[in-house]
Amino acid sequence: MQPSVIYKNIKYSGKWLEQEEIVYRDHNGKMMSWENVKRKNSTGAAVIIAKLKPSNRLILIRQYRPPLDNFIVEFPAGLIDDNENVKMTAVRELMEETGYTGVVISVSYPIFSSPGLTDESLYFVKMEIDELSPENISPKQSSEPTENIEVLHTSENELNEFLKERFGVGDSIDSKVAAFAIGLSDNQF
Amino acid sequence: MQPSVIYKNIKYSGKWLEQEEIVYRDHNGKMMSWENVKRKNSTGAAVIIAKLKPSNRLILIRQYRPPLDNFIVEFPAGLIDDNENVKMTAVRELMEETGYTGVVISVSYPIFSSPGLTDESLYFVKMEIDELSPENISPKQSSEPTENIEVLHTSENELNEFLKERFGVGDSIDSKVAAFAIGLSDNQF
Repeated sequence: MQPSVIYKNIKYSGKWLEQEEIVYRDHNGKMMSWENVKRKNSTGAAVIIAKLKPSNRLILIRQYRPPLDNFIVEFPAGLIDDNENVKMTAVRELMEETGYTGVVISVSYPIFSSPGLTDESLYFVKMEIDELSPENISPKQSSEPTENIEVLHTSENELNEFLKERFGVGDSIDSKVAAFAIGLSDNQF
Repeated sequence: MQPSVIYKNIKYSGKWLEQEEIVYRDHNGKMMSWENVKRKNSTGAAVIIAKLKPSNRLILIRQYRPPLDNFIVEFPAGLIDDNENVKMTAVRELMEETGYTGVVISVSYPIFSSPGLTDESLYFVKMEIDELSPENISPKQSSEPTENIEVLHTSENELNEFLKERFGVGDSIDSKVAAFAIGLSDNQF
């Protein structure tokens, strides 16, 4: 039979995250329980795969993440604010986190970051940045003072090597960047 | 200055997941607070990128996930058990979830699924499956009775189209599969 959720119980509600118990009927018709973490007041995130044109370099960011107590290499990304659509979030976050003004090329369907643990969703947004445009010659981040983001550039050919090097000097690597890199080089597999 | 964690407070402890408050010193030396979700008793997961040889088809799975109340297309994957290394987990989980016997080609460094929300970590494991080997002619899953996993096959050339179709008929898509697919087709970008 078709599994489905019967009810949910909020077990703990923090400022940003909420832990809930999900009681559901499984494919055998049996009542089961699962644990889920929700982002409160969030409709998802934009994750930005941006390239500088014409050099074709990829933009990544490096920032400290308290859950890892470490610096991690990620795609630029941010939560979709109220009254924003995904494209608006992507343009705003790219500007805030990297200083670059880009244009959106395409937006994916909604996807899920870790579906066994959280219903957190995101959209991949492909963007292009005209690096010869005056506004992109000396990009200036407009991050919030609590953020401290380093902008990284790499060519796609060198992405796997680049990530290995960052890992080698102690950085962590985000799963979406790593999966993208494996896909890029998969003709070698 | 170098940010670092000062202390952590467990705010709620479920059966599998634990929510904690992290108090850390940021790059300005200021005390800040963050929320993190931990998997209890887990050292990470193996996420399997497996190909059938010689047909070169990719193996994906489709299963119901209570957090989404929906079916989702993912790579085969599972948590690393006590007394296992990542390779052992990958071989075991591929067998349990798909019925296939595969060999490990490579294992990535540890990576992080959603570093703003959780310290959950995983390893990408590339595997090959000899589809002409007797044990792989009629693969039989050995899933736990609580699991109900459908095995999907697709060529890499058709992966993006395949995922769009699955989304079109109502399935959700995992971020690691989607990022891999975007990487595969990125020469079109």
